[in-house]
Amino acid sequence: MKILSKQRVFEGELIRFSHASKVTNCEMTASVFLPPIAISLSSKQPVSTVYWLSGLTCDDQNFAQKAGAFRAAADLNLAIVMPDTSPRGYGVADDADGAYDFGLGAGFYVNATEAPYALHYQMASYVTEELPQIIESQFHVNTRKSISGHSMGGHGALTLGLKHPDKYHSISAFSPICNPINCPWGQKALGAYLGQNPEAWQNYDATHLLATRDMVLPIKVDQGSADEFIENQLHPEALVKAAQQSGASLEFNMHTGYDHSYYFISTFIDQHLAFHAEHLSQS
Amino acid sequence: MKILSKQRVFEGELIRFSHASKVTNCEMTASVFLPPIAISLSSKQPVSTVYWLSGLTCDDQNFAQKAGAFRAAADLNLAIVMPDTSPRGYGVADDADGAYDFGLGAGFYVNATEAPYALHYQMASYVTEELPQIIESQFHVNTRKSISGHSMGGHGALTLGLKHPDKYHSISAFSPICNPINCPWGQKALGAYLGQNPEAWQNYDATHLLATRDMVLPIKVDQGSADEFIENQLHPEALVKAAQQSGASLEFNMHTGYDHSYYFISTFIDQHLAFHAEHLSQS
Repeated sequence: MKILSKQRVFEGELIRFSHASKVTNCEMTASVFLPPIAISLSSKQPVSTVYWLSGLTCDDQNFAQKAGAFRAAADLNLAIVMPDTSPRGYGVADDADGAYDFGLGAGFYVNATEAPYALHYQMASYVTEELPQIIESQFHVNTRKSISGHSMGGHGALTLGLKHPDKYHSISAFSPICNPINCPWGQKALGAYLGQNPEAWQNYDATHLLATRDMVLPIKVDQGSADEFIENQLHPEALVKAAQQSGASLEFNMHTGYDHSYYFISTFIDQHLAFHAEHLSQS
Repeated sequence: MKILSKQRVFEGELIRFSHASKVTNCEMTASVFLPPIAISLSSKQPVSTVYWLSGLTCDDQNFAQKAGAFRAAADLNLAIVMPDTSPRGYGVADDADGAYDFGLGAGFYVNATEAPYALHYQMASYVTEELPQIIESQFHVNTRKSISGHSMGGHGALTLGLKHPDKYHSISAFSPICNPINCPWGQKALGAYLGQNPEAWQNYDATHLLATRDMVLPIKVDQGSADEFIENQLHPEALVKAAQQSGASLEFNMHTGYDHSYYFISTFIDQHLAFHAEHLSQS
């Protein structure tokens, strides 16, 4: 692990680092916020962790800079792990036209099966397996985890949390892509990463997973009513319907006037962290 | 006034707008955060305003995106006005080499007297006179104002606040350039904007002003001990010494381990807004 920077914030520490990934076959960059209790030399108590998955075009820095989340994380004794949104670097295949919604910055948190993407685009395993191993071996954290994210990262948090109820304690999302098999962003990405296999697509569709899984973690989703992507890309109504059908524990909040930006996230992130802290503290 | 965007945040509103400026002779862009009470149709109470002056390379958006200030501003019923850091646009003279520390993004909140800068670089009058007139005529705010800023903007807040105790109720700064006549950033900018006139330079030097003014507003300054610019550019010790000599009301806090970034600002901005709210509420 190579430390790129350490910055003091809310008496905790924001650490940016890179490491060679065996899963994505390239150097990956990630950031972690450690609350004051996790950097205190006298502290014996490792802290629980919230994984934050960012949206299209982001890297590990957007949430750190714009969400205003570290005050609440410091108060709640939570670490926050912020992975990149895709593999990057020499030889990592990108969208042929350099589009923002596929390839670099747009890994969609899947394990790609199709060439040329399968070699590096293994973000599902990276986020759920390799990165937690690194975090838990290098920092003063325990193995208790929750998962959250925004837009493409909300899709990632929902799908990975629904598929791995053994790894996480709770799931939350802001403005998630709820039903990617039925929207342009999802169809483009899933088709290229996974090929034309309907079953593989369903395996990364939060609405399908929520309707069909038996064991479902507590889920909190917030959505802005003035979100410019709500109708064509996000389809929250499909997720709500799936939860109603399956009886899953979904707390869905629609907020009048909020858009798709980090201003929306910053307004409600404290509530998400409190939600995760509550579930992480339960045995 | 041309509205560029309106975004909901903490139940208030962030409005970005541009307008033709008679003072800087170009189109200027600025942002304003209005707390919920100032956008409520039923509210009769106009709110007080904190002017935030940003640092080198910034525009009106950096503070809005990175400071995490709107939660506290909403709670305290404060509007926040965020001007740009320089005039911009076709024909506005920039640094000959395109350096980051002079010209565009680096107006230093002075009224330039030297060609070719004097035509547009009139940021002192813009911030203290023209922009407040626009804000107070267009939004539901009163005329009570305080002023704050970071780095070059901390220099701006201190100098404009010290020179205009009639216009503001309190002054605060993060990591300000305290003594620009004695640091490379200041010498480069003041020399080019004001010529080689020692008296004109002193008129924009917070340390000199604090040592020589009779009436001084309450001032709060926060500085990080791990700030990469503290020794060569900021010189907080000069400001502290001037306050001790003149008996001015300066609350100076040195914070161990914090750097020059917005992570430092985000950690302590709530305290600055509470400081301003207290002084703005006094008659």
